[in-house]
Amino acid sequence: MHRYRSHTCAQLNTADVGQTARLSGWVHRIRDHGGLLFIDLRDHYGLTQCVVDPDSPAFKLAETVRAEWVIRIDGEVKARTPETVNKSLPTGGVEVFIREIEILGKSAELPLPVFGEPDYPEDTRLRYRFLDLRRETLHANIVKRTKIIADMRNRMNEIGFGEYSTPILTASSPEGARDFLVPSRIHPGKFFALPQAPQQYKQLLMVAGFDRYFQIAPCFRDEDPRADRLPGEFYQLDVEMSFVTQEEVWDTMEPVMRGVFEKFAEGKKVTQQFPRIPYDVALRKYGTDKPDLRNPIEMQDVTEHFRGSGFKVFANQIAGDSKVEVWAIPAKNKEGAEPIGRAFCDRMNGWAQGEGQPGLGYIFFKDGAGSGPIAKNIGEERTDAIRSQLGLADGDAVFFVCGVPSKFATFAGAARTKVGTDLELLDLDSYALCWIVDFPFYEWDEDEKKLEFAHNPFSMPQGGREALESQDPLSIKAYQYDAVCNGFEIASGSIRNQEPDTMIAAFEKVGLSKQDVEERFGGLYRAFQYGAPPHGGMAAGIDRIVMLLCGVQNLREITLFPMNQQAEDPLMGAPSDASARQLRELHLRLNLPAEKKNA
Amino acid sequence: MHRYRSHTCAQLNTADVGQTARLSGWVHRIRDHGGLLFIDLRDHYGLTQCVVDPDSPAFKLAETVRAEWVIRIDGEVKARTPETVNKSLPTGGVEVFIREIEILGKSAELPLPVFGEPDYPEDTRLRYRFLDLRRETLHANIVKRTKIIADMRNRMNEIGFGEYSTPILTASSPEGARDFLVPSRIHPGKFFALPQAPQQYKQLLMVAGFDRYFQIAPCFRDEDPRADRLPGEFYQLDVEMSFVTQEEVWDTMEPVMRGVFEKFAEGKKVTQQFPRIPYDVALRKYGTDKPDLRNPIEMQDVTEHFRGSGFKVFANQIAGDSKVEVWAIPAKNKEGAEPIGRAFCDRMNGWAQGEGQPGLGYIFFKDGAGSGPIAKNIGEERTDAIRSQLGLADGDAVFFVCGVPSKFATFAGAARTKVGTDLELLDLDSYALCWIVDFPFYEWDEDEKKLEFAHNPFSMPQGGREALESQDPLSIKAYQYDAVCNGFEIASGSIRNQEPDTMIAAFEKVGLSKQDVEERFGGLYRAFQYGAPPHGGMAAGIDRIVMLLCGVQNLREITLFPMNQQAEDPLMGAPSDASARQLRELHLRLNLPAEKKNA
Repeated sequence: MHRYRSHTCAQLNTADVGQTARLSGWVHRIRDHGGLLFIDLRDHYGLTQCVVDPDSPAFKLAETVRAEWVIRIDGEVKARTPETVNKSLPTGGVEVFIREIEILGKSAELPLPVFGEPDYPEDTRLRYRFLDLRRETLHANIVKRTKIIADMRNRMNEIGFGEYSTPILTASSPEGARDFLVPSRIHPGKFFALPQAPQQYKQLLMVAGFDRYFQIAPCFRDEDPRADRLPGEFYQLDVEMSFVTQEEVWDTMEPVMRGVFEKFAEGKKVTQQFPRIPYDVALRKYGTDKPDLRNPIEMQDVTEHFRGSGFKVFANQIAGDSKVEVWAIPAKNKEGAEPIGRAFCDRMNGWAQGEGQPGLGYIFFKDGAGSGPIAKNIGEERTDAIRSQLGLADGDAVFFVCGVPSKFATFAGAARTKVGTDLELLDLDSYALCWIVDFPFYEWDEDEKKLEFAHNPFSMPQGGREALESQDPLSIKAYQYDAVCNGFEIASGSIRNQEPDTMIAAFEKVGLSKQDVEERFGGLYRAFQYGAPPHGGMAAGIDRIVMLLCGVQNLREITLFPMNQQAEDPLMGAPSDASARQLRELHLRLNLPAEKKNA
Repeated sequence: MHRYRSHTCAQLNTADVGQTARLSGWVHRIRDHGGLLFIDLRDHYGLTQCVVDPDSPAFKLAETVRAEWVIRIDGEVKARTPETVNKSLPTGGVEVFIREIEILGKSAELPLPVFGEPDYPEDTRLRYRFLDLRRETLHANIVKRTKIIADMRNRMNEIGFGEYSTPILTASSPEGARDFLVPSRIHPGKFFALPQAPQQYKQLLMVAGFDRYFQIAPCFRDEDPRADRLPGEFYQLDVEMSFVTQEEVWDTMEPVMRGVFEKFAEGKKVTQQFPRIPYDVALRKYGTDKPDLRNPIEMQDVTEHFRGSGFKVFANQIAGDSKVEVWAIPAKNKEGAEPIGRAFCDRMNGWAQGEGQPGLGYIFFKDGAGSGPIAKNIGEERTDAIRSQLGLADGDAVFFVCGVPSKFATFAGAARTKVGTDLELLDLDSYALCWIVDFPFYEWDEDEKKLEFAHNPFSMPQGGREALESQDPLSIKAYQYDAVCNGFEIASGSIRNQEPDTMIAAFEKVGLSKQDVEERFGGLYRAFQYGAPPHGGMAAGIDRIVMLLCGVQNLREITLFPMNQQAEDPLMGAPSDASARQLRELHLRLNLPAEKKNA
């Protein structure tokens, strides 16, 4: 017999009754039922109920066993009586009567219980992460994470991509966040940087002729911790292809993403064909470039209905500034729901005021007419025209935002979310995916009073060099796109600008010279001189996708050994002091803040 | 039609004759054959011969095209005439008559030719790595590398292992080499370390109940560059299992390694069942714990034949020191080969002297008797006993090494290699794999005059705590093993010591206290207090395995973007200066050597 186990703790069932089994695992729970000891034995795979009766030679030792000890048991598999069968457990039809126990690893008193998963402070959970990770929910999340990543890999391999590992000790990358630096021992005063993303390397791979690259790539940014961002490292599904248009990137990656979501959605609906929504349209319909399409509300421009109307607050603004618009947030009520009335509308208005807005105008419809102050002010005809444009009926309502769209779009988007959420219009049992496309190439930096790249400086402007030379820069779109799921950006990509002259022309507009480009992106710029193919790709945020599929809000619930909010690992004790010898070898001296120096 | 290609450069064949095809790729070579221009177009997948005749509308543009430009062509697929068919090329039956050319990316004059792969200095190759990587051999090696790694992953997934990514920003690990440090911005004066291996994390995963872990793990050691070691990072197939004996680790991983070797051996033989050779036996038979088993020579102890014999050089040593032994290196000649004669034996003797040895005694056999000085000195009877023990015959020879085995074993191993290689006894068309097992747990550090761990301090000593308490420490074996292929260690592993008391007892013998253990390995030691399962595993060196399977000697031939021998990346310009702001944010000052300060 195997030294430790004949079966895992998930394998035994009624077909094994009468056999002798050997199991190893953790003592999940012990119960004393009138002399009989019940030990739930747990391993990675599952749980098996074991029993020791006072006649068993193992009884005395069994009495000493405590929760989370690791034991090996031998015993006979018996059928449970019908009333004690546990149908929710694969092994729930049987129990093992223990004849022999071997203690493989005792446990000291637990700082963090495993059974029942009671809430515990995060620092205890991280310091004793090896116990935390035994808990059913976190254990399952981590296993799901590894399966999602393995599935991504399989899908990428199946469609002809090769996984290429790019260097982790490298030079600063141009993503613009702060680099982690690694001092060089051999070159005094010089530093490596950990990659913020393998952007330049993957483009170099295309120049080197590799055609279809992917990587589950560790990325590093030295940013301050935030609830939705762990300090240190994160993972991307990084992709690049040669000789492609942006449509081909979408057609290639959409089935991969849809496939991953479908496989791990646990029955939730997944968008079959991702809508491709231009950035401008997304802003107008959803007030954001990360729309949650589970929310059916699409905003519309209703400016004309208010121009010269009796609702002076809007009419005067429209008359005074040609940029002013009125957007409607139509709230088409759920079938069979209570009609939307004044109380709901006033609540929304109050919420808007809490958000620092003057309020949220509204009309609600009942008895074949519009109600509320705005309806009164603009009159029956205009009210009905709005109702008709938006396709609303009795029981529905509409909310209005007025002003210069670039200033109110974000708030309008938030109001759309609030209305949709509070009316329970969102289909929460779904993953709603889309592409946001045609991002602007440049944006205006109001602080610096200059043009900036809106997104990736390596993207190809639509229209190429000609557009750079002839178009208003702020009107130029990029071959730049995001994938969005349920209101979160889950991927971002572009067709790259591989023409050296076009690259220089693009950088010049943001005030960077050819020399600057050579200094900052020398490796890539040089490579483009020697036969660069058209290429493009994307990077998907693995942590975010896993969070969505696990239904959790905090990155620590899907990460094995995360740092805490202070960017420390209390389990391993990182970061820690360096020895004087290490500092000397690295040609460094500490330059501590004053209070530290005196300490 | 697709914007860039209807086919890759490896797809067209005689079934496509008459069709219009669109191809994109690099101009591999241009030849002018009496007005006709032949353009070999290359992409990641292959090569297609294209032709432009002077009547083609593309002819004028074609004349401007140069090697390594990226072009897109449209043209008609035609069958080649029988005498011009190239059978070594999948597309060799056809050529494409170009009607249209689009230039997608020009190339400046090449600092490094791609076609023909002429030798070039390494610094040029690394600085223009994107050109170097287009060369057929390196390109194929890199593709093979990615396929080997993908295959390893598939095999591990198939047998129930999950891939868990462990942190890259962590605390110092106990492997004993030098760490790369990463200064913490948030914690002044503190440093993260890049992992030398995920050893502690994978053991923590077992304590957390994950059972079967693997990872294609990036590892980092700040060591001085060497021919067989790249500066910076390397990759391991890292594996750990719970509730296993060492035999189960071997039984699990042997099929994985055999499978990978067989799949990529390109027809070479691969060992079907890896011999399991105890460390002590390996030293006596092969003079090394990394034996090249393609060499059939197994050394034997022939001390008794020399004791009291007429060959005084050996006999006196044997008489003077009970530790002295004589080892025989039997050279059984290949069938049909020239008999081994005095000339060969004298050459070996000369080689040994070149190695700083007094020489290499020998007997060679012809006409039914042994020849040479030793045979003469010890006489016919002893000579024949030796011949008989070693199973030798006319045409064969034997070489002798005499002394204290621990001192001469390495030289004896080198002599075995030299004899086997020079006699061409090695089956070079094979991958000979084995396990070396039962390594010693401790070794004697002659400099420090104290015990040291022979290998991994986390290994379980055979016999456990009892052995530590009762046995001579130098006689204790560890559950510690290596996998070896063709003379190279390709993997190393052990069953771990997961019992806190046994761990402390093991460390005490090398002079480390409980407190030292807690300080250095706190995370792991603490975890062992809370129910640790028996566990073990191994780590295989991916770079070494890929080198063996690609048949190359230099790591740079299988690495995408390696650093040079000075630990620099001349392509990306790493390492580089940090800005004053970066240093300030990291609470560091440079402490440069004198000559740098004055510069």
